[in-house]
Amino acid sequence: MTSTPHRLSDLSTPCLLVDQAPLLHNLETMSLALPGPRCRPHVKAHKCTALAAKQVAAGHAGLTCATAREALGLAAAGLGTDILLANEVVDADRLRALAGADARITIAVDSDETARRAARAGLKEVVIDVDVGLHRCGCRPSDAGRLAAQATSLGLTVRGVMGYEGHAVGVPDREERERLTRQAMEFLIEAHAAVGGELITAGGTGTYDCNTWANEIQAGSYLLMDTAYGKLNLPFEQALLVLATVTSVSDGWAVADCGLKALGMDHGLPTLLSGTVRGVHDEHILFEADELPSVGDRVYVVPAHVDPTVAYHEAFWVTDGEEVVDRFQVDLRGW
Amino acid sequence: MTSTPHRLSDLSTPCLLVDQAPLLHNLETMSLALPGPRCRPHVKAHKCTALAAKQVAAGHAGLTCATAREALGLAAAGLGTDILLANEVVDADRLRALAGADARITIAVDSDETARRAARAGLKEVVIDVDVGLHRCGCRPSDAGRLAAQATSLGLTVRGVMGYEGHAVGVPDREERERLTRQAMEFLIEAHAAVGGELITAGGTGTYDCNTWANEIQAGSYLLMDTAYGKLNLPFEQALLVLATVTSVSDGWAVADCGLKALGMDHGLPTLLSGTVRGVHDEHILFEADELPSVGDRVYVVPAHVDPTVAYHEAFWVTDGEEVVDRFQVDLRGW
Repeated sequence: MTSTPHRLSDLSTPCLLVDQAPLLHNLETMSLALPGPRCRPHVKAHKCTALAAKQVAAGHAGLTCATAREALGLAAAGLGTDILLANEVVDADRLRALAGADARITIAVDSDETARRAARAGLKEVVIDVDVGLHRCGCRPSDAGRLAAQATSLGLTVRGVMGYEGHAVGVPDREERERLTRQAMEFLIEAHAAVGGELITAGGTGTYDCNTWANEIQAGSYLLMDTAYGKLNLPFEQALLVLATVTSVSDGWAVADCGLKALGMDHGLPTLLSGTVRGVHDEHILFEADELPSVGDRVYVVPAHVDPTVAYHEAFWVTDGEEVVDRFQVDLRGW
Repeated sequence: MTSTPHRLSDLSTPCLLVDQAPLLHNLETMSLALPGPRCRPHVKAHKCTALAAKQVAAGHAGLTCATAREALGLAAAGLGTDILLANEVVDADRLRALAGADARITIAVDSDETARRAARAGLKEVVIDVDVGLHRCGCRPSDAGRLAAQATSLGLTVRGVMGYEGHAVGVPDREERERLTRQAMEFLIEAHAAVGGELITAGGTGTYDCNTWANEIQAGSYLLMDTAYGKLNLPFEQALLVLATVTSVSDGWAVADCGLKALGMDHGLPTLLSGTVRGVHDEHILFEADELPSVGDRVYVVPAHVDPTVAYHEAFWVTDGEEVVDRFQVDLRGW
């Protein structure tokens, strides 16, 4: 590709497409449902400062991220009004870089050791990460008050509590999702009673409208969406596609150039807008269709899981119908 | 990381490690079993010209790759003696770049259309890709002679046939693996009888010592290995690890910083040298262990599938015990 592509047909494949109309719909839908600081968009889903800037422009000045690289990249892009690094970081070099960034960065701690390392590196503000039932990171709810006091004694300002109901966000049945969210948030409210602070931060795309206990929701996938969240009957539309080209057609199946190195596979097979996926190999997607395409035809793949799909790619091509209107670098990859 | 790390303890995580001793063992074992042109190493597994150069230095001047980017990167690195792009490519820009590269590049074709596009771009040499039972790409064995004549009529030189027994390479039972390989190679030999040419190219790490019909084997995974091939009782050793750091420890489990964006997941969960993996999230690996580690401890993760794991990373750190002896860029990523 020597010049900037202006049409879909100019793009080499596989590549990520972001369809502008559903992108704008998703931005607007979220900013109406959870205006301003009620949503703290999680950038780990797109790893892209250009998309994060759109979320900030939609009113959400505070952002969430999962890695030091994401936090530092947001800071460098001038998006550092209020960054929450919603994960434990223990690397001394990275913690020092975070402390030195030109941004307000708050980091999650769930143990004396993570609090000590944050304080030693010169970080100022933390949230107490509480295990609300996902059983990943987070202290026990009953230990949150003690840990907050410990953090305070180290000179850290404790801004509140965080608890991710990751075991609830993807549950297809809405009643069950609400039940699990309520149960999880009871733990978080218990912890907050002991910790205090202005932040009760939780949630994700799947619980954005039923988690009424948290005062901010860390939704990320809503912006681009994937087939997993697509099953939840949420008001967000599929904005992310992988464009692929058919390279081989046989009796009853065809192959396109979108394989395991272009797709996160932990949620299972992706889907195809026009065909049934039979399997995915390193550089191939195999599919069946009522009417098989020809070699050179384009097909559209919908990823099963947005986050690890995007992390394989260098850029998004922003599209409006057949027109390519922009290119956004996936500039927050790595750690 | 400001200076070049010299010790494992200097490395930020997650990151790829290549252990030098098993790497050299694997290089030597293959070059003894399939010396010189009997092995045409597949670089898609490591996407790294520094590792490809070691395979060439071990006597395998011819290399296999799966994407135009890999072929062009090998050519630019001076490794273009005899590159086989073992995949169909239909992108006109990429085909022209391949035709213009300072390298001998042979490309797979499996249809009139792929042959036409290769010829139109100025490529000179092809192999006829035959479906030997994997049912991915490849023409029917009975169509190989006709397609070869068609390619010849377009001015292309047909160097022989290719057929990947991908449905056999990973079968744990050796007798069944051999049976499927024999069956697959009967198709390839049938095609070769109609096509002619010096190349009968096939195979992979799992069939490197039982595919005695092909005259060259496209083995890739043998160099670094993964848990899937680790089950096949092959003489290759695990050289690739992902180094991770423990960030959180709870009652009965711990979490380290090696998640879905650091691991190919299509072959299922990775394994841990010291613990049992319970799950993998975007930036977290959850595990149990008889003796739980402390926050800040290092753990070693063995990927289930080498290819899509490596494709997430920028570099390999080459290690000798606790010492970091080199850094190899994963410089063939993308397409």
